[in-house]
Amino acid sequence: MPPILVVGTVGLDTVETPFGKVEEALGGSAAYFAAAAALHAPVQLVSVVGGDFPEEHRCFLATKADLDGLEVLPGRCFRWSGKYHYDMNQRDTLETQLNVLAEFDPKLPAGYRSAEYVFLANVDPVLQQRVLEQAARPKLTMLDSMNFWITGAREALTEVIKKVDIVMMNEEEVRQYADTTNLLKGGRQILSMGPHTLIIKKGEYGAVLLREEGFFFCPAYPLEDVKDPTGAGDSFAGGFLGYLASSGEISMAHLRRALVFGSVVASFTCEDFSVRRLATVTPDELSRRYREFREFTYFDEV
Amino acid sequence: MPPILVVGTVGLDTVETPFGKVEEALGGSAAYFAAAAALHAPVQLVSVVGGDFPEEHRCFLATKADLDGLEVLPGRCFRWSGKYHYDMNQRDTLETQLNVLAEFDPKLPAGYRSAEYVFLANVDPVLQQRVLEQAARPKLTMLDSMNFWITGAREALTEVIKKVDIVMMNEEEVRQYADTTNLLKGGRQILSMGPHTLIIKKGEYGAVLLREEGFFFCPAYPLEDVKDPTGAGDSFAGGFLGYLASSGEISMAHLRRALVFGSVVASFTCEDFSVRRLATVTPDELSRRYREFREFTYFDEV
Repeated sequence: MPPILVVGTVGLDTVETPFGKVEEALGGSAAYFAAAAALHAPVQLVSVVGGDFPEEHRCFLATKADLDGLEVLPGRCFRWSGKYHYDMNQRDTLETQLNVLAEFDPKLPAGYRSAEYVFLANVDPVLQQRVLEQAARPKLTMLDSMNFWITGAREALTEVIKKVDIVMMNEEEVRQYADTTNLLKGGRQILSMGPHTLIIKKGEYGAVLLREEGFFFCPAYPLEDVKDPTGAGDSFAGGFLGYLASSGEISMAHLRRALVFGSVVASFTCEDFSVRRLATVTPDELSRRYREFREFTYFDEV
Repeated sequence: MPPILVVGTVGLDTVETPFGKVEEALGGSAAYFAAAAALHAPVQLVSVVGGDFPEEHRCFLATKADLDGLEVLPGRCFRWSGKYHYDMNQRDTLETQLNVLAEFDPKLPAGYRSAEYVFLANVDPVLQQRVLEQAARPKLTMLDSMNFWITGAREALTEVIKKVDIVMMNEEEVRQYADTTNLLKGGRQILSMGPHTLIIKKGEYGAVLLREEGFFFCPAYPLEDVKDPTGAGDSFAGGFLGYLASSGEISMAHLRRALVFGSVVASFTCEDFSVRRLATVTPDELSRRYREFREFTYFDEV
């Protein structure tokens, strides 16, 4: 099975929610993505950590991804600290320490350059561009971004969007980037720039996959207990791309299933702090929840 | 086919959106419900208007519902005026004139008392209760409410909720009534009071149907041009109950289809001001959009 290359952050998260708190837990977009994608396919990880990266996190990550691309720089790890409120859809960032991430300049090990599936997690679009230049001939490239780059690095972001196959943004970001409140119009505008597929994340409301030929909507799994939504978006991407890589096909039918697997995996992520739940979830649990998604979205013809 | 009894408001709406404006157009929960439900089943309408109710509105309503229950009181019609902003999910109420609605005391004509399907639109729960007392032995009763009654008439609302089969609320109202941010927990709490089904409206994100045996999610139709969302919720209820009454069955499979028809009808409502689009929509258009809903929510087993 072809490995998936992910380029993103690996760091230490301190997170508080109404249901508990973790300190310096494994976090970062590439960590969540790898833990999720590894449920379906092998992963090659490109990121940077400091000399203080805990051995237990490295060992866990090593069970999920090839770490030849995980650079260790002198200095401290990237750290993020956030707090979720009673309504878990809102969070405050308490602190962001870039540390070694400020010097991140992704270099693909020789064995990664032929990766067929490439995920550019939410980092500076200039770095995303450099990764694309090093990748030989990927079959499928996918990009995530955020408001910070849309406002602060719009031109560079636009250049990368033009080059990738799949763009993933949340709905506010689509509206912001395309400068329209209508998601469908905004989405079509992004598709007209080059990507064949746009994934619009809607948080607790699910996600939409938009292509020229049509769209597909998948709701989020209604969890009775959301413990920590951190990393839901990155593990969603991991579940999505992991399934696609394992299936080897990029038809609309496969993209639909992949979007559901993304939602399945993201729902598990929210059940515990950090990547804990992704560490324990079984193939049986994945299949069962996939069937539940079918059960609560299916209806007959009339 | 058994008629559906609706008790709610009929009035004159003045609405401004970024796409135009209408003055004193036909509005009110019972008017939207009737125009929607009539696409599938006959409707009996109980409401009140003033002496100034325009003949053209009466004639239009008469093509959609039996108007024996439409009382005419001396005075002026209920009037509502609102303005939608660039982001159509937000609106400001500019003015509400209760006028004759302040004296509304619903009396069911003899021919209405045996109605099998009853929709209690969003009015004072004390009035909803009086309607239930006059109905002989309905097969299915459904109630809509809003934050105004949840905070201002909680006890009376609770009494009616205990007596109906289906409760419809939007997600903020479920959270408010059940005092929890978790929709699933809030929903289960409402089901434990008596109703066998709860419909949670999520606006542009669709609707969820929740029962002891499980739930079903239907997204909203992604419209490229929303002209006026006024009445979407009431016509959603009309499409839902209209289909159920026409099918005669209340199984989970039928409730699923009904929820989709509710979403189908609500999407047409948003395409024009007032009930205009509901006046022109054809059975073919309904079926076509229903199939589109299947197309954009369907995915295979794996």
